[in-house]
Amino acid sequence: MERHFEEEFDRIKHKILTMGSLVEDQIRNAMTALVERDEALAQRVIENDRNVNALDVEIDEMSLDALVRYQPVAKDLRFVTTAMKISSELERMSDLAENICERSIELSEEPQLKPYIDIPHMAERARIMVKESLDAFVKMDSALARKVIQDDDFVDILTEQLFRELLSFMMENPKTISRAIRLSFISKYIERIADHATNVAELVVYMVEGKIIRHTIPPQAI
Amino acid sequence: MERHFEEEFDRIKHKILTMGSLVEDQIRNAMTALVERDEALAQRVIENDRNVNALDVEIDEMSLDALVRYQPVAKDLRFVTTAMKISSELERMSDLAENICERSIELSEEPQLKPYIDIPHMAERARIMVKESLDAFVKMDSALARKVIQDDDFVDILTEQLFRELLSFMMENPKTISRAIRLSFISKYIERIADHATNVAELVVYMVEGKIIRHTIPPQAI
Repeated sequence: MERHFEEEFDRIKHKILTMGSLVEDQIRNAMTALVERDEALAQRVIENDRNVNALDVEIDEMSLDALVRYQPVAKDLRFVTTAMKISSELERMSDLAENICERSIELSEEPQLKPYIDIPHMAERARIMVKESLDAFVKMDSALARKVIQDDDFVDILTEQLFRELLSFMMENPKTISRAIRLSFISKYIERIADHATNVAELVVYMVEGKIIRHTIPPQAI
Repeated sequence: MERHFEEEFDRIKHKILTMGSLVEDQIRNAMTALVERDEALAQRVIENDRNVNALDVEIDEMSLDALVRYQPVAKDLRFVTTAMKISSELERMSDLAENICERSIELSEEPQLKPYIDIPHMAERARIMVKESLDAFVKMDSALARKVIQDDDFVDILTEQLFRELLSFMMENPKTISRAIRLSFISKYIERIADHATNVAELVVYMVEGKIIRHTIPPQAI
């Protein structure tokens, strides 16, 4: 019994990591689609969201099943409920990657407003946050989780900065407004992906330390 | 034992309803603060977010406790895990009400761009969705939950419509850009509140019917 529970633990961990690397791909591909104005790739990201959703459902069922079969307590119980919550967070990140691609398809119908440098940079930071938050989960490493939480500030600052830049484009030339707004939406989506990674990290701190920190940090500013 | 579990069930239900009516207040007050340009009220909403967070933590702990003590299975198990997920959704709605108030404080520093009619109307629809999704939860009424899911389309259409209107303001007069963008953020926050209510409704359908519908509906468009 003890033994089987350990195995079930590992299967759930493994599924979360599989889902995480799919979400990382979604983020990376969404950026490539944007930068290279590749509509076919954008469509592929939109379609792949289905696979992420399927994993979310699978993890949920595995977790409910583990709760019934092994009736875990204390840390083990927190592990299972945390896995369920993390899979919801990942599922939302993939929705946001999908939203990025929708905007990116619209943007490819007009000439490019500016070279895309900051946005892929932000997205890469967010992707690393996703990766590290999941590493923190599987290694039960709350120090790494706390690092992820701090990294979120950097993404927030970049979003703010980009927003001001886009605002100045719009002020100078109203013809840029619809493109600038689409780009600002994209940067907000990335900021929200980073927020979800922060949620994961906060869940990990709670799981490991039994301490709730998720509500001590103010919600996003913009 | 049977009896105690029923009582615990009811306590959790009751807490969810308390949290829900707090969130409804947050939405309503955020709108009053916007329309009446009432900064003190906006600040109060921002501060009240703490109370919503405290309830989220409490519901989480009650639910974990119920899982350990009563080791529920099947529908009862789904009830407890659904309660935990619903409380996360409510907590995020309150964060969004807080965001509305932040933008509303910024807006009150400049002359009003246009009479605020559509936005409070949207917010009221979203608030009703929140209320009905929780009614569906406590009554285990999946038909009502399905109605909430359909109502979400209405909020999406209004957001889209408002966005086009704001875009035309910006095009005509670049001086309106920063206000128009803040208003479009506010309408996005409301749209996201409605999305969270939709998530709650989808969780209820799953809880009642054991059928997953949450991933058959495409994510928000803008």
